[in-house]
Amino acid sequence: MIITREAILAMEKQHRTNLINSLPGVRGANLIGTVSTEQVTNLAIFNSVMHIGAHPPLMGFIMRPVSVPRGTYKNIRDTGYFTINHVAESFYKQAHQTSARYETSEFEATGLTPFYSDTLPAPYVQESAVKIGLKFVEEHLITANQTILMIGEIQEIHLPEGAFNEEHILQLAHTGSIGVNGLETYYRVEKIAELPYAKPHQPVV
Amino acid sequence: MIITREAILAMEKQHRTNLINSLPGVRGANLIGTVSTEQVTNLAIFNSVMHIGAHPPLMGFIMRPVSVPRGTYKNIRDTGYFTINHVAESFYKQAHQTSARYETSEFEATGLTPFYSDTLPAPYVQESAVKIGLKFVEEHLITANQTILMIGEIQEIHLPEGAFNEEHILQLAHTGSIGVNGLETYYRVEKIAELPYAKPHQPVV
Repeated sequence: MIITREAILAMEKQHRTNLINSLPGVRGANLIGTVSTEQVTNLAIFNSVMHIGAHPPLMGFIMRPVSVPRGTYKNIRDTGYFTINHVAESFYKQAHQTSARYETSEFEATGLTPFYSDTLPAPYVQESAVKIGLKFVEEHLITANQTILMIGEIQEIHLPEGAFNEEHILQLAHTGSIGVNGLETYYRVEKIAELPYAKPHQPVV
Repeated sequence: MIITREAILAMEKQHRTNLINSLPGVRGANLIGTVSTEQVTNLAIFNSVMHIGAHPPLMGFIMRPVSVPRGTYKNIRDTGYFTINHVAESFYKQAHQTSARYETSEFEATGLTPFYSDTLPAPYVQESAVKIGLKFVEEHLITANQTILMIGEIQEIHLPEGAFNEEHILQLAHTGSIGVNGLETYYRVEKIAELPYAKPHQPVV
């Protein structure tokens, strides 16, 4: 089946959103925690958390256009800090529910537990095995549709013992981290293999 | 366990790369296909393919700094087009092997099969169930580490029949798409659930 550009543009809006959102495949399900200057916490689920670089240690995520108020964006720009927290299967329904529009903190609304460290003001999610604290460093406005790439530098990482192997690679079975495709389909993951660094002379199969 | 910023910066380089690369969790494993102005094809695996927006339909990915020559980057800027192709478990070792440095086309080197459409010059991967053709629209240089966010607009999508459900959400079990964490750990995925759009009054658990 070939879906042309014209067919995409002619699709019913929700169908187009669902299809295009699910095209990148599975992605890590992550909760981003922030706090306002009035000390109101905010928690929101994102499927766009990405690696930017290891030295300095940088991560990013995509914000939808701020033409409507976005608590996550405003809090990061006002306070300079945010946290990234892996979603696990044990609380993925609560994590998903953070995408509803609440008048109060999503922590209160969903029952997830804020956790604080002395290093930064933004709240972590206590239930998350992988908690990453970041300081905002730069943003890029994407001209084509006014979304924003937000980038932060890692300030600290909270992990359970045994979360990574001797090569320092995170083991998602140990952390219980799950994936999401598009905005609503959650996936558990199972390791196939850890492959060696690819060199030209290696046999391929 | 708390890993401080200082401890991250003091880590052995490969350990730091492995840890920071694996922090976002699982991500879709995708092959990006391009062709040079001399008609030499290039194929490279990426773990950073992301959704940017549905209308216009936009996807992006992160390029490492172009301080060393990057075939994918040069080809996209020279020809204006690229393809994104989902990796499946049946050929993930070949897909991984595209990250080795070859003198010839990675298609030849790995045995993956180029497939062409009349819509654009960049090669698709015939073995991929999900093939997406894109036209380059913009790039953003990330100041903190000189990586580049590349963005393209979807021109066409090739999918097998039944690849998405009646809501137009891609079904990764049908397409066989797998995930990768960091640079080398491949994961198969299994659907947990498709949750409804979150509204404030819904019970959370």
